[in-house]
Amino acid sequence: MADRQKIIIDTDPGQDDAVAMLLAFGSPELEILGITAVAGNVPLKLTEKNARKICELAGKPETKVFAGAIRPLVRDPVSAEEVHGKTGLDGPDLPEPTMKLQEQYAVDFIVETIMSEKFGTVTLCPLGPLTNIALALIREPKIAKRIRQIVLMGGGFFEGGNVTPAAEFNIFVDPQAADLVFRSGIPIVMMPLDVTHKALTKASRVEKFRKLGTRVGNATADMLEFFELFDERKYGSDGGPLHDPCVIAYLLKPELFSGRECNVAIETGSELTMGMTVIDWWGVTKRPKNALVMHDIDHDGFFDLLVERLGRL
Amino acid sequence: MADRQKIIIDTDPGQDDAVAMLLAFGSPELEILGITAVAGNVPLKLTEKNARKICELAGKPETKVFAGAIRPLVRDPVSAEEVHGKTGLDGPDLPEPTMKLQEQYAVDFIVETIMSEKFGTVTLCPLGPLTNIALALIREPKIAKRIRQIVLMGGGFFEGGNVTPAAEFNIFVDPQAADLVFRSGIPIVMMPLDVTHKALTKASRVEKFRKLGTRVGNATADMLEFFELFDERKYGSDGGPLHDPCVIAYLLKPELFSGRECNVAIETGSELTMGMTVIDWWGVTKRPKNALVMHDIDHDGFFDLLVERLGRL
Amino acid sequence: MADRQKIIIDTDPGQDDAVAMLLAFGSPELEILGITAVAGNVPLKLTEKNARKICELAGKPETKVFAGAIRPLVRDPVSAEEVHGKTGLDGPDLPEPTMKLQEQYAVDFIVETIMSEKFGTVTLCPLGPLTNIALALIREPKIAKRIRQIVLMGGGFFEGGNVTPAAEFNIFVDPQAADLVFRSGIPIVMMPLDVTHKALTKASRVEKFRKLGTRVGNATADMLEFFELFDERKYGSDGGPLHDPCVIAYLLKPELFSGRECNVAIETGSELTMGMTVIDWWGVTKRPKNALVMHDIDHDGFFDLLVERLGRL
Amino acid sequence: MADRQKIIIDTDPGQDDAVAMLLAFGSPELEILGITAVAGNVPLKLTEKNARKICELAGKPETKVFAGAIRPLVRDPVSAEEVHGKTGLDGPDLPEPTMKLQEQYAVDFIVETIMSEKFGTVTLCPLGPLTNIALALIREPKIAKRIRQIVLMGGGFFEGGNVTPAAEFNIFVDPQAADLVFRSGIPIVMMPLDVTHKALTKASRVEKFRKLGTRVGNATADMLEFFELFDERKYGSDGGPLHDPCVIAYLLKPELFSGRECNVAIETGSELTMGMTVIDWWGVTKRPKNALVMHDIDHDGFFDLLVERLGRL
Repeated sequence: MADRQKIIIDTDPGQDDAVAMLLAFGSPELEILGITAVAGNVPLKLTEKNARKICELAGKPETKVFAGAIRPLVRDPVSAEEVHGKTGLDGPDLPEPTMKLQEQYAVDFIVETIMSEKFGTVTLCPLGPLTNIALALIREPKIAKRIRQIVLMGGGFFEGGNVTPAAEFNIFVDPQAADLVFRSGIPIVMMPLDVTHKALTKASRVEKFRKLGTRVGNATADMLEFFELFDERKYGSDGGPLHDPCVIAYLLKPELFSGRECNVAIETGSELTMGMTVIDWWGVTKRPKNALVMHDIDHDGFFDLLVERLGRL
Repeated sequence: MADRQKIIIDTDPGQDDAVAMLLAFGSPELEILGITAVAGNVPLKLTEKNARKICELAGKPETKVFAGAIRPLVRDPVSAEEVHGKTGLDGPDLPEPTMKLQEQYAVDFIVETIMSEKFGTVTLCPLGPLTNIALALIREPKIAKRIRQIVLMGGGFFEGGNVTPAAEFNIFVDPQAADLVFRSGIPIVMMPLDVTHKALTKASRVEKFRKLGTRVGNATADMLEFFELFDERKYGSDGGPLHDPCVIAYLLKPELFSGRECNVAIETGSELTMGMTVIDWWGVTKRPKNALVMHDIDHDGFFDLLVERLGRL
Repeated sequence: MADRQKIIIDTDPGQDDAVAMLLAFGSPELEILGITAVAGNVPLKLTEKNARKICELAGKPETKVFAGAIRPLVRDPVSAEEVHGKTGLDGPDLPEPTMKLQEQYAVDFIVETIMSEKFGTVTLCPLGPLTNIALALIREPKIAKRIRQIVLMGGGFFEGGNVTPAAEFNIFVDPQAADLVFRSGIPIVMMPLDVTHKALTKASRVEKFRKLGTRVGNATADMLEFFELFDERKYGSDGGPLHDPCVIAYLLKPELFSGRECNVAIETGSELTMGMTVIDWWGVTKRPKNALVMHDIDHDGFFDLLVERLGRL
Repeated sequence: MADRQKIIIDTDPGQDDAVAMLLAFGSPELEILGITAVAGNVPLKLTEKNARKICELAGKPETKVFAGAIRPLVRDPVSAEEVHGKTGLDGPDLPEPTMKLQEQYAVDFIVETIMSEKFGTVTLCPLGPLTNIALALIREPKIAKRIRQIVLMGGGFFEGGNVTPAAEFNIFVDPQAADLVFRSGIPIVMMPLDVTHKALTKASRVEKFRKLGTRVGNATADMLEFFELFDERKYGSDGGPLHDPCVIAYLLKPELFSGRECNVAIETGSELTMGMTVIDWWGVTKRPKNALVMHDIDHDGFFDLLVERLGRL
């Protein structure tokens, strides 16, 4: 297929990361050049292993998986086992992966790939803290001009944060990395909590995955049932927000999302608001627009897409 | 009336401040001990004059009006003529006031009143930057324990800010004052943009004021028609948010509002988020609850109350 | 005397404040319009009483002493009993004062005096945190242009700080006030730790005060012997730094001091360096010069002056 | 020689870096495992070339030179051509190097070397911004425990900064990297401006290098004569501060230096003091000691050592 979008998924699975990966694996429009793991929801040792587990679950053991940053650029590591469970993928009972981890450092893979692929053809899909992406930009600043776009899950605005009142987890864990990425000049599409909190894993939706009657469908249902517990307890909602698959869904059906070009600045100077994505939604500053910030989602269309694509695996 | 609530209105009129004052004047449940003016929407020279204009419009020239802070505690003054017009009360054609300004400094009046009135009986109603209140707390820290409560308009959360992406005008103008007030231990009820943006001055509502057929009704309609222009242009909304009257309405009918006890911390350490009210709505920090933050309003009930009370003047 | 310099001493005695007051009382070139007390080394209750004690010790019970700020503008109060003792004037045994405290608020006195005295004739001499001065500037910004100059003790640069590695006590206690004062446009002469740490109260110097054989001489010797203990223990020096009298000495003999016009900016945005006086001694920034920062002192000449003038009392 | 100290010199030559390298090359006590270049005084393209030029000047073309970070972790690059000239090595006329740059990334070399050499045997000698060292710590946090010590040139305290009033160039260029290094737990010896400004390249000292009558001696004299111009103009001093060789001299003759174990914290939260090394020299905080901060130098002994060792080349 001549026009498959070339993507690198940078991820810290995490159940919602896993569903994002599965969505990508089920979508022939995408060519996954590699999966790069980063410390985030759980430590790197687990995220790279979880990434391989999901590749094997999807029946794609030939996928290249790389391990990247063990820790954030500057701040001490923070993880989120209270959300994702001890393994990061609590819920289903997935076997230990047999496929090998690539030897190359994820950051080097990102740099080499972008420098060797055709100019403007590679899309980065960060689903966790932006450490690997920032390290790639530090390693070789020239990649900034060669990247097609970054479509990421992170931040929040009208929804505020989740890990602090002002900050969303992915950005909070490595605000310096996020600052670097948002100031890089690379075209950015951002899926903040404002979108992902509208994509809830209601029981009826989880049921549809289970009804696929496949290993993937069952594992997805198991993952989501575990994952939604945290948010249901916290927000009293029906289901939890399915954050990361929004990134992949945007590549497949951008019309599911609506938003606005804005300036987004990252707070790195104050502990109180550390890691906040300050989004100039109403254009009250003179700061230049640097991101397409999504705000709304056709959640039914989104879940229909998910079920259909996961059904192919 | 034995149980009238004793209030001091601290204000920077401002059309919405004016409507708040009129609501108070039309409400026999309230005993207005004084009106203290502060620099904010427009400079002090104008806000204290505007306060007197409104007293006379309401037929209450005996009201004590005091001038307070000319400028914020630390930061350079900022005003908002683009919203309120050059006079701060653009819209109606109100005559120059003939009643006198009190000679006493507003801050001294606040301190003396709270120290001399019965313990726990005086409510402060700040409708502008919190400079006067902070200066009173600096002048005499003992007032903190003697104040019944502070019901204020300021801040925002799910709505973000209005003057910057993160900060609402009243708090942004004097974040150090706000910081002092929110750390003072005084019970606080907060009406953020989240509430006031749900109290829109739609054309049908403005018409009800005009139909009162009174000077007050016509002047109010004229003020609101001017005032709503700014927000209609900015947000494309039908009408503008009627911020400050929410404070007085809460004293009269608290059941119009709903919200939650939270910790509110004021950002004073970073220019990017300066003056943000960081509201721990979901209780993710261990910081103690220091404010009742309103989130929703029965806007029809609110406008019914306004029309009924302004109709008494 | 037609050309006596009119001064207001703003102070938080403190033994070194006391010696500064005595130096002023012993100097006919100075007309002390009033003494304004501020919370600092010890709470206001003590600093205003200590100021009166010193007036009486000097035989000047007719001096007007005013109480000012109980607390800093924004930050919580900090005091320094570990340096000055529980009373703030530990050392000599001074009787309770019988002279009355003025009823007027120190801040109002400062404003009224500067507004009523001839333009450009009043010098402010702050020896403690700058809260009273900042409050006067907030109360009436017009005083900025009318003040002749501010000669203050505060800050440090090559010496770093004393209360934190970066900040000197007076500035640290109320950095927001200092920020306001240093941005006010008022001509400022600054005596930082760099100067005052060169003005050590060696035993031989203390002895000279005692040899005066007067009440003032003995009390001064007693005060200095107590006061120097803290710095001797901390720095292993011979004597302690006699900070505040440098301010008064500069009015009498500016040739005792040498320094440079610089930009001085106050750190208020980071806890680590909170209250640091960032002095652009080498002119590496483009920021405008706003203070004459002293760096050296003829310490023998300084102590000679002190002994001679205290000998007159 | 069984007990040669194994070192990696991390550098951004720079004339004073060059002299530091020459001092190391002339000292048999040291085993130079590699030279890692970093962007700093001039861009990386020049610093790695300059490093090779100096290896060849010293007659050590077999030395391994690696290129590292092109840019700081987070902040935009800053360089100092006004001090070092356009090439970074202005002064002598050195030929283009013929020796090759190593292909490996400097950061990877640092990590691999420390992980493969015996535990606790490798000393890092950073002479420029700490970006490479921070990137190595991010790449493999385990190196922290395996490094013998870091002896670095950077920061200042009683001397303030040089590039801003508060910050020294090396730390200012990458304060986030410095923050990471100073919080790493690695034993640190710090040569701040307080030391290096006491090691001035007076004319008589430069003359001694020239009198060596060697290529190295002449090139060193040429470098220093260019290098000292900037500081002579700025400070009106006789000669300029010979910063970086202090690091190597400490490895050879630690007795030339004296200082104190302190806590050193890096300011990263405020632009005004960004990159300041906040040194708790007097122990007024409770923060743990994390660096041996040098304060004094036997400058004659230091220059004697330099001349003697450069004379061996």
